[in-house]
Amino acid sequence: MQKFEKKELKKKSENLSDWYNDVILKAELADYAPVKGCMIIRPYGYNIWENIQSYLDKKFKNLGVKNAYFPLFIPNSFLHKEKEHVEGFSPQLAVVTIGGGEKLKEPLIVRPTSETIMYDAYAKWINSWRDLPLLLNVWNNVIRWEKRTYLFLRTTEFLWQEGHTAHATSAEADSFARVILDIYKKFDEEELAVKIIAGEKSGAEKFAGAQSTYSLEALMPDGKALQMGTSHLLGDNFAKVFNIRYSDKEGKQQFVHQTSWAETTRVIGALVMVHGDDHGLILPPRIVPVQVAIVAIPIKSDQKEKDIFVDKIKNELSISGIRVEMDERYEDSVGRRFNYWEVKGVPLRIEIGEKEIKEGFLTVFRRDTFHKEKMNLVNFVQKISDLLDKIQVEALDRHRKFTEENTHTVDDYQEFKKIMKGKRGFIKSFWCENKECEAKIKNETKATSRVLPLDAPEEKGKCIYCGKAAKYRWYFAQAY
Amino acid sequence: MQKFEKKELKKKSENLSDWYNDVILKAELADYAPVKGCMIIRPYGYNIWENIQSYLDKKFKNLGVKNAYFPLFIPNSFLHKEKEHVEGFSPQLAVVTIGGGEKLKEPLIVRPTSETIMYDAYAKWINSWRDLPLLLNVWNNVIRWEKRTYLFLRTTEFLWQEGHTAHATSAEADSFARVILDIYKKFDEEELAVKIIAGEKSGAEKFAGAQSTYSLEALMPDGKALQMGTSHLLGDNFAKVFNIRYSDKEGKQQFVHQTSWAETTRVIGALVMVHGDDHGLILPPRIVPVQVAIVAIPIKSDQKEKDIFVDKIKNELSISGIRVEMDERYEDSVGRRFNYWEVKGVPLRIEIGEKEIKEGFLTVFRRDTFHKEKMNLVNFVQKISDLLDKIQVEALDRHRKFTEENTHTVDDYQEFKKIMKGKRGFIKSFWCENKECEAKIKNETKATSRVLPLDAPEEKGKCIYCGKAAKYRWYFAQAY
Repeated sequence: MQKFEKKELKKKSENLSDWYNDVILKAELADYAPVKGCMIIRPYGYNIWENIQSYLDKKFKNLGVKNAYFPLFIPNSFLHKEKEHVEGFSPQLAVVTIGGGEKLKEPLIVRPTSETIMYDAYAKWINSWRDLPLLLNVWNNVIRWEKRTYLFLRTTEFLWQEGHTAHATSAEADSFARVILDIYKKFDEEELAVKIIAGEKSGAEKFAGAQSTYSLEALMPDGKALQMGTSHLLGDNFAKVFNIRYSDKEGKQQFVHQTSWAETTRVIGALVMVHGDDHGLILPPRIVPVQVAIVAIPIKSDQKEKDIFVDKIKNELSISGIRVEMDERYEDSVGRRFNYWEVKGVPLRIEIGEKEIKEGFLTVFRRDTFHKEKMNLVNFVQKISDLLDKIQVEALDRHRKFTEENTHTVDDYQEFKKIMKGKRGFIKSFWCENKECEAKIKNETKATSRVLPLDAPEEKGKCIYCGKAAKYRWYFAQAY
Repeated sequence: MQKFEKKELKKKSENLSDWYNDVILKAELADYAPVKGCMIIRPYGYNIWENIQSYLDKKFKNLGVKNAYFPLFIPNSFLHKEKEHVEGFSPQLAVVTIGGGEKLKEPLIVRPTSETIMYDAYAKWINSWRDLPLLLNVWNNVIRWEKRTYLFLRTTEFLWQEGHTAHATSAEADSFARVILDIYKKFDEEELAVKIIAGEKSGAEKFAGAQSTYSLEALMPDGKALQMGTSHLLGDNFAKVFNIRYSDKEGKQQFVHQTSWAETTRVIGALVMVHGDDHGLILPPRIVPVQVAIVAIPIKSDQKEKDIFVDKIKNELSISGIRVEMDERYEDSVGRRFNYWEVKGVPLRIEIGEKEIKEGFLTVFRRDTFHKEKMNLVNFVQKISDLLDKIQVEALDRHRKFTEENTHTVDDYQEFKKIMKGKRGFIKSFWCENKECEAKIKNETKATSRVLPLDAPEEKGKCIYCGKAAKYRWYFAQAY
């Protein structure tokens, strides 16, 4: 097993951003790459991504979605076919101009997203109503050139899944986009233990080329909102551009209605930020690579007896499906080994030493609360499993409570400005849905509309900025 | 379910290459992409890749290998650090020169392989003997510019896994490279049902920068050999270039010894070529997305009774883990529906119509032999499962037999030339291991040395070309 060096971890309570970068490096989730803006995802971080993939992939397949693969390179001309789409992505493109030693006639764009290259194929594949719905998903890497980057949260290259579906009707497409939103919300809350505010984006904030964008927003410890995923109703915008038509049951030609939706490695950043503390990561049990670390403490008496005891504990936990790792690095001090697992955010540490073996119990340490308990061996697997469930639930509860405490219902713009200058958070305010008001609010407070929750009741209100009639309270926040 | 159009499939028996492209398109494994040399992997093809991933990923993890992710872009200077490596890859590079609207100071290479960017990180991560072995694997996409491309077999972009390990000693690294070779061989033979000749590459054919390359070669129906995967012993070549050192137990600085190994989407091409026939694909049961297609035939009598019968068959097969798909496209003719599953190479088709329901039996059709049998319902799940196993074994047997029949032991160069002008195949000949002889043989016959099998006995022979003393019989063939 790898040697570790204890270096002082920066404090979350002092500077979130410094701590965030530091804990990602020290917990070995990721490392900086020699190419500016790119990152290396190390095994401990990648294993979280594998857990995310495994969960979402199953859910998508249950809906009948199939995986496929589309090329990394997109002809420059393709991106220009949908006006809003190309305007949205142009500043962020990486362009291949040389291939096989020769200058290319048409430069190739390294995909920032795959709408255009996929829909060119959809036009070929879809002919009849019987070809619908077409439900595809791709797990791949995309490139969006970034000036200011941030590990996981904003990198020039990131990993994601992008789902792209085509349906016969607008209602069916919209309903599908919302089903995906629900899957993401359930995943983010129940697996990542991150409280989500889900809803629809404003015109200015929606995806380049979409009819509506549904989004998942989560509040970070610094009071800024992070977009955790999006599900877009594309309508027939792209269908008209790429000529994706089907003949309906009456033999009439119709345009398809489409959706696209994505969740990315960015959510790992949210996981780090939301749950960690001054001692390192705190990872929710369902998503963490290692749920229980067994730290065997050197003993003077019978080594064989110890090995049997430790192996029995490990095997019983493993067999029941709990992800356990053994730590027998006797050459390092116990304190450093404890620290190692704390920085990594492993939910439970089981300490086994002289006393535990003689008296037949386990010392179980909870990473989130720093609570230590003596656990007798009767039914210990069930008890550990229950404890992991409890930690999972409490993690979401903590973040739900934090989100509630930092969500303000505000009807006075001065108060709005004051909150955004101070602790920030979500602000629920009436807004007339006029782009100019939103732009001015952004300019004066750095806050933008995040979402209108899908279940927001229609009310009679006045726009927080201009005072004109407004129907809904939107969520505002400064965004990552 | 999708509508299909029956179009005449080209014949494998008439022109392998035309049939190959045609069957890939018609069976919907893949499609051409608008970017030259790239391909779209459609769900039916991608599902094969997912089955490949799932098998190999488990085997690698059992060895302690962990997955990670490294950047797509490699600084130009990195590739130039290892002389042979850059010479090997230079003609095939795609180069990004523009990022975020600006000309880049240093062009970025789209990875053709990740040795250089990974080993730069290894140098940072490896310090002590306790950091070893470092066993990482990456599932990603790579770009190698190709002038002449071929679906799956040679495309500018392809998917693969690349494993990269670092060890304390050369012996340990070599042993690891061979363990991986064994995993690939077992996979290719037992899952893909492709007979493998495994061995070591000659100096001219080894990987750019490797000390030795172990390779897996398979004979295609046209008598040409296809490289199915490689496992390289890199020695300390890259360690010296990237300064990857560890302090051993005595505190002395030592260079690590490395391996790298890969299997790619190319093997799907081999799967198609080796097993298909004039009627379409024939896919081995272990790797195929759909093992059994149930074709329900329209009946005049009780529809409900039929639905119950068909559902029961489907459910019992599914529950036992067999991958079944229902085909209830009554609006299409039975003949076209049979043809659809034949082109897709689904191993078994179960036909259920009037007679089957009344008399209580299944009509089971084997795609490989075109044999139809009446199967009574007693223990039918076990019988179907046994039949799938049998088909799997017989597929490998057929290819083993083909390979043996087309492997010639030759001591006379005129005969060598004659075979290579005719039906080709593998030729086992003594070779003095001199590069010049190999180059001349290639020039005159298009054949190169493929591998020296690891268990080849040392003999006293004469080089097939120059007549000088030679110790081993090498496998020669024309290569894809």
